[in-house]
Amino acid sequence: MASDLDIARAAKLRPIAEIAATAGIPPGSLIPYGHHKGKIDFRFIESLRDRPDGALVLVAGISPTPAGEGKTTTTIGLADALREAGARTMIALREPSLGPCFGQKGGATGGGHAQVAPMDEINLHFTGDFHAITSANNLLGAMLDNHLYWGNALGIDPRRIQHRRSIDINDRSLRDAVIGLGGVAHGIPREDGFDITVASEVMAIFCLARDLDDLQARLARMIVAERRDGSAITPADLNAVGAMAALLRDALQPNLVQTLAGTPALVHGGPFANIAHGCNSVMATRTALKLADIVITEAGFGADLGGEKFLDIKCRQAGLAPSCVVVVATIRALKMHGGVAKADLGAENPRAVTAGADNLRRHVAAMRAFGLPAIVAVNGFLSDTEAEREALNEALEPDEIAPIFCTHWADGADGADGLAETVLATIAAKSARFAPLYPHTMPIAEKLRTVVRRAYGGDDIVLSPKAAKQIARIEQRGFSHLPVCIAKTQYSFTADPNLRGAPSGFTIPIRDIRLSAGAGFVVALAGDILTMPGLPRVPAAEAIGLDAAGEISGLF
Amino acid sequence: MASDLDIARAAKLRPIAEIAATAGIPPGSLIPYGHHKGKIDFRFIESLRDRPDGALVLVAGISPTPAGEGKTTTTIGLADALREAGARTMIALREPSLGPCFGQKGGATGGGHAQVAPMDEINLHFTGDFHAITSANNLLGAMLDNHLYWGNALGIDPRRIQHRRSIDINDRSLRDAVIGLGGVAHGIPREDGFDITVASEVMAIFCLARDLDDLQARLARMIVAERRDGSAITPADLNAVGAMAALLRDALQPNLVQTLAGTPALVHGGPFANIAHGCNSVMATRTALKLADIVITEAGFGADLGGEKFLDIKCRQAGLAPSCVVVVATIRALKMHGGVAKADLGAENPRAVTAGADNLRRHVAAMRAFGLPAIVAVNGFLSDTEAEREALNEALEPDEIAPIFCTHWADGADGADGLAETVLATIAAKSARFAPLYPHTMPIAEKLRTVVRRAYGGDDIVLSPKAAKQIARIEQRGFSHLPVCIAKTQYSFTADPNLRGAPSGFTIPIRDIRLSAGAGFVVALAGDILTMPGLPRVPAAEAIGLDAAGEISGLF
Repeated sequence: MASDLDIARAAKLRPIAEIAATAGIPPGSLIPYGHHKGKIDFRFIESLRDRPDGALVLVAGISPTPAGEGKTTTTIGLADALREAGARTMIALREPSLGPCFGQKGGATGGGHAQVAPMDEINLHFTGDFHAITSANNLLGAMLDNHLYWGNALGIDPRRIQHRRSIDINDRSLRDAVIGLGGVAHGIPREDGFDITVASEVMAIFCLARDLDDLQARLARMIVAERRDGSAITPADLNAVGAMAALLRDALQPNLVQTLAGTPALVHGGPFANIAHGCNSVMATRTALKLADIVITEAGFGADLGGEKFLDIKCRQAGLAPSCVVVVATIRALKMHGGVAKADLGAENPRAVTAGADNLRRHVAAMRAFGLPAIVAVNGFLSDTEAEREALNEALEPDEIAPIFCTHWADGADGADGLAETVLATIAAKSARFAPLYPHTMPIAEKLRTVVRRAYGGDDIVLSPKAAKQIARIEQRGFSHLPVCIAKTQYSFTADPNLRGAPSGFTIPIRDIRLSAGAGFVVALAGDILTMPGLPRVPAAEAIGLDAAGEISGLF
Repeated sequence: MASDLDIARAAKLRPIAEIAATAGIPPGSLIPYGHHKGKIDFRFIESLRDRPDGALVLVAGISPTPAGEGKTTTTIGLADALREAGARTMIALREPSLGPCFGQKGGATGGGHAQVAPMDEINLHFTGDFHAITSANNLLGAMLDNHLYWGNALGIDPRRIQHRRSIDINDRSLRDAVIGLGGVAHGIPREDGFDITVASEVMAIFCLARDLDDLQARLARMIVAERRDGSAITPADLNAVGAMAALLRDALQPNLVQTLAGTPALVHGGPFANIAHGCNSVMATRTALKLADIVITEAGFGADLGGEKFLDIKCRQAGLAPSCVVVVATIRALKMHGGVAKADLGAENPRAVTAGADNLRRHVAAMRAFGLPAIVAVNGFLSDTEAEREALNEALEPDEIAPIFCTHWADGADGADGLAETVLATIAAKSARFAPLYPHTMPIAEKLRTVVRRAYGGDDIVLSPKAAKQIARIEQRGFSHLPVCIAKTQYSFTADPNLRGAPSGFTIPIRDIRLSAGAGFVVALAGDILTMPGLPRVPAAEAIGLDAAGEISGLF
């Protein structure tokens, strides 16, 4: 059986200018990066302003398990099938971070016959966007500490610095550090730390900015530190906004690549789905909507987390209204939600499928709560059995859901024919009545409660005294209108990663609140959320290298 | 009078594929990065192997002063003039670091009518090479600390870790840090620090590697830490070489840009000229020599420092033999070497020129000590007077040097006509008898002594007891064959930056020795050398931004 790498290497990619032409992008408006990647020029994007938008389809998932779900693979397979059916289709996806590439094995470019390419270039450096974001974030840090060094005219309280430096590598030893050591000539000692780049607020801002002006306005609003009296210090106070924007300018132009089947794909931006909103850039989604009749995009983690944030944060801020949601599951993952251990997934187990379907049903309910039609796609594994598929059909019948079984991993576009037909019919039916889960005027605690009840199926939140105080302060400072971004384990509807399936009667403890004033949301931390991953005992990096021909190996 | 920026913006750049064609690079072998930058494919470079090399011309300078010398401007002006005279000419230059861009005002792309372009793209991110180097260096750091975290099977002594992380920003507060804080789950606390990327050994390795195999062999030789018994830990021990090479692979392909006059220029790699060897990559120089009849390249700082390292380290390792050296001076800078303060440079002062010429004469002597013909180019300022030029003519006569007065800054190629003629005649005369200053078999202390005497005009070195011990250990470990790299202030032949001109009767104190086993040289530190610059009170970054059209402003 051909591996993902075999399939990717056997594919003959088309020059990126041809893909651009397919998407209606003229040669002068494509900024090439190598033969198979390009950026779309701002001026061309600006010229599209008055075109009507295509239909937006969100691909979300069940709560992730170690069995794998294949949201990206399904996003790609669906788009390829729609294009084969004659619809002008584009994809909008996140860019991968270097961190996971070198940590846990696995890229972020799909798999089987449903991949975006060139996978090695997309996974390593790509067009340099994340490096630009890292640089902008760290220039800000350097200017902040430089300000302290030269006398601290702004009166920054060194104990009240929220800004952290960033690096696009999993490096746990940089989580907590004391910097500025070495004596008078080397800075002011203080506690600091590094987040992985995708967890930085600059990344979230980059992904939510509508254009260069909005980018700069958001950067200027970031709160990086406070004075003793609690008043805010921003990049604007440090005169850092212009230089940060100069570093981010070219990067903000969306990246164009292709699927193995030749469907144009915009792969751009990649914020964490816990501390941030977890989906590709607004620039890319809006550009794709101008260029295509149907745009397939993806949200991180399960529909409860990534889907909710996509809808309540990104769609609200960017004025987007999806036509429907595809919720992706696999038989294997449903069996894990039904109580089967990973080692036992090979054995047929329709009862576990039935039990695990509760997880899927709740995600569907969460998406319906936004007024959106939900379609269930089952990403087929060769080990799935007819009895298991039948068990799933029966489990979903009470909710009037007919799952669509797909084989795009094995068969490419042909394997997602049925899914494409259903998506086309759903778009044509215009049954979506999208509205966010809560109005912006709702108090912050009430917003949190609403998400917990309507998206997670929980009973309530439990605010720590600290979090309650923080919320009061944020509301007092005039930020009560912002949406909330709950940073919670993705493995469960609850705050306990071990509770699979669809638990009920639980509360979500909120221990800490952070204001992301530039990104424009209030982060609520439920449990310990690491903003800098560590490497495993044997990092994937150890297997990566160059083969005899100088090509990169070991990335799959 | 038009500013550098005005001139750059008024220039009509040619598509990079046209410039590539000029240089004999076929379209399929150019990897485009935007419309005006590209990388040259490894396979094409490999195909050039049996072609004869062109002539190599080194542009070096007097000891730098705040008055400015204009080596890069002269490199570009000379190349443009040679090309106008009909010679197939290419340029090989270093890439700029983001650090100085945001620190002290000023890019590194020449000036006036002698610039490489596009200046904003070259100065910011360019093709991402430095980000790739930063990532490879920091992945190594993460894998090193991860190894400690998971039990330290290799027995690394955490007090004997030489590796430092890097960042391409001037950030003094990261010079000394304690990392790994936060408790058991977050690493092993230890002292660490960040160097600016250009000061990292990975940068030096990148710039000295002949090809991908050599790159990996050098990475594998780096000594990143030691055990308690002093035995070495390398990236090979950490299984990090392959992943580092994967990160560096694309970056190692040289970058092609153009001068405002359309001369092809390879701008690639940029190591510090103190802790490392200070010139562009071997890959770029060797590729240019295959593609052009004449290649003009530049060494950092004065000829004594950058020129010496170019010749003793890079030319020795890469098997290069230059045809001649152009030593660049300005009347203004010579006046500073003659004792004039910067504020008084506007006033005519032929006597100061005469006095300052001693600095220039010693640099010429240093270059002649390598068996190379030296040409003196005076980069003209509008304020220079006839009496001052005459004073310089007279001062150089005893050494049989006729300085060539150039006006390429103001006039472009036409302003360097005379210089081009002299360079052509010198190459044709084949008078170069290049040999490094010392044989590789010479003991390390003797190598240092030789450089101090023959390149700096000093009497001797004074080794600290620590340095003497370090040298003994390095020789005992089998590295006595390596060339030396003296890290010393660039402002003086001595170790005291305030001693301009051409002091005599001095010794150079060597306080510390570092082995760069991967780069392949022994660094001798004379005085305090900072490997991480700080930002000034008002960083240049504060003036950088986007103008109303979204273009980057404030970079000049």
